[in-house]
Amino acid sequence: MSLGIGLVGLGAIARAQHLPALEQVEDVHLAALASRNATLPDLPCYPDIDALLAAEPDVTAISLCTPPQGRFDQAMAVLRAGRHLMLEKPPGATLSEVEALREEAARRGLTLFASWHSRAAAGVDPARDWLTGKTLRTVVIDWREDVRKWHPGQQWIWQAGGLGVFDPGINALSILTAVLADPARLISADLQVPEGRETPIAARLEMRAADAAITAHFDWRESGDELWRMRLETEEGGATLDQGGARFAIDGQVQPIAESSEYARLYERFRDLVARGERDADFTPLRLVADAFLNGRMHQVAPFIEAPHG
Amino acid sequence: MSLGIGLVGLGAIARAQHLPALEQVEDVHLAALASRNATLPDLPCYPDIDALLAAEPDVTAISLCTPPQGRFDQAMAVLRAGRHLMLEKPPGATLSEVEALREEAARRGLTLFASWHSRAAAGVDPARDWLTGKTLRTVVIDWREDVRKWHPGQQWIWQAGGLGVFDPGINALSILTAVLADPARLISADLQVPEGRETPIAARLEMRAADAAITAHFDWRESGDELWRMRLETEEGGATLDQGGARFAIDGQVQPIAESSEYARLYERFRDLVARGERDADFTPLRLVADAFLNGRMHQVAPFIEAPHG
Repeated sequence: MSLGIGLVGLGAIARAQHLPALEQVEDVHLAALASRNATLPDLPCYPDIDALLAAEPDVTAISLCTPPQGRFDQAMAVLRAGRHLMLEKPPGATLSEVEALREEAARRGLTLFASWHSRAAAGVDPARDWLTGKTLRTVVIDWREDVRKWHPGQQWIWQAGGLGVFDPGINALSILTAVLADPARLISADLQVPEGRETPIAARLEMRAADAAITAHFDWRESGDELWRMRLETEEGGATLDQGGARFAIDGQVQPIAESSEYARLYERFRDLVARGERDADFTPLRLVADAFLNGRMHQVAPFIEAPHG
Repeated sequence: MSLGIGLVGLGAIARAQHLPALEQVEDVHLAALASRNATLPDLPCYPDIDALLAAEPDVTAISLCTPPQGRFDQAMAVLRAGRHLMLEKPPGATLSEVEALREEAARRGLTLFASWHSRAAAGVDPARDWLTGKTLRTVVIDWREDVRKWHPGQQWIWQAGGLGVFDPGINALSILTAVLADPARLISADLQVPEGRETPIAARLEMRAADAAITAHFDWRESGDELWRMRLETEEGGATLDQGGARFAIDGQVQPIAESSEYARLYERFRDLVARGERDADFTPLRLVADAFLNGRMHQVAPFIEAPHG
């Protein structure tokens, strides 16, 4: 039987990724929408999550795509109504609130899926398999993109809790923590915050995992093509994850990997977690970001001025 | 048989609290010291933890009193040498490193005691007992002290990872998370960072636990007597923890509570945890601080200039 999903939030990520994935995945379908200002044709649409939950008792699974700030009350309302919950990344604005969600879901026996779409990129599983049994020396992460291209007009990313450049950077950290055998810990961080903004536009992190040194460069000021790359050096040779994890090369040889959609894989996983009555809520990427804010040095840099789009 | 403790770090907190407690507690004694520049008479003293561990195989329990930055390598060396470990608060500079310590201790079957001395204050257990079964409405925390009095000349508190005013403030958070029945989560934070410093001199936090609203004011610019107070309002009446938890009053009536030393209670607990082969490593106070940095708004305030001490 097909799992009907209630989608909450119809911003850029929902339109570009969630709607096509919900069309594509077997035994999953879009059953209702909650959005403040948007509707979709031929679908029950509600102004907010509470209205959706009240009117649609048979929609047993909800997918939240709203910005992390303010998402907690929506997520808790979903769980209190006894529905399964999938969260777009990042799972929330703070560690204490996502832990509270995990506890609530566990207490009620509901599925909580804190999704990390980059972990579903086609090269991630092959990279983890390749690393197994090797001795890792260094990891260098370069995650650079043009914020004007990828987040046009989005204000929440610059507001406290919006993570700034860690919004894409946490994708790299979600891959890192999925492929490493040992837990990564933060050593130091430098955060560059534009004058008048609350979140960084660029960051450099130093981490360690066992004896491996890990460096990450996150930058939103890239004016050319985006670069989403992770270089792994082991005592037994090197490999590179590129294109956000979609491409994997060993010693320069690109490996043949199946084409697949990250978000289709997420909804397949959510469907299977619900069917098995399981949870998948790993917050280690958000914990590394919190550590970077806790332990990092802030530097004020030039104001960010977004040119008008038209 | 008395448990011999190796003490690492001989700063202000070790001299004022750890040494007297180690004199006082039954079946515990100071067995060795590691300090870069200090020694104690009639005691084996070493320049660093590695020298102590190598020379003293029979010292099976180590207490770390060094500043949180750089403590990880010392702590990991202790666990890798198969010794039990007690950490002064805060347990480390990041959440990822303290989680790594917890995992290492669990893997090796060693005691890890992440101590929070304020939880051992005499009024904390009575406050938790009083709260049990009541409906909490609000908590107001005022934690104000003169940094010049309590941290004279200490530079690490102003450096990234040193927590700034959260160094005392985390004591309040450790009490809060010990007395509340429900988990606390951060809603918002304002952090005031002096020009040229890396950590806040004052902070205001808004939190929630179930339906209770919690406000915390931390300030290091108090020039008069320190104020370490937590006011609890329930539907069934109010109570106040004062003097950092040493004093407890219900509806204005000060409760008779036994005099006791926080640090003596910590070493009694460490001794008992080791004897029972248990761990006590709760990092929720540090997680709330990390959330405050992750989600908080930073404001630059006037430079902090410490008058010369003579």
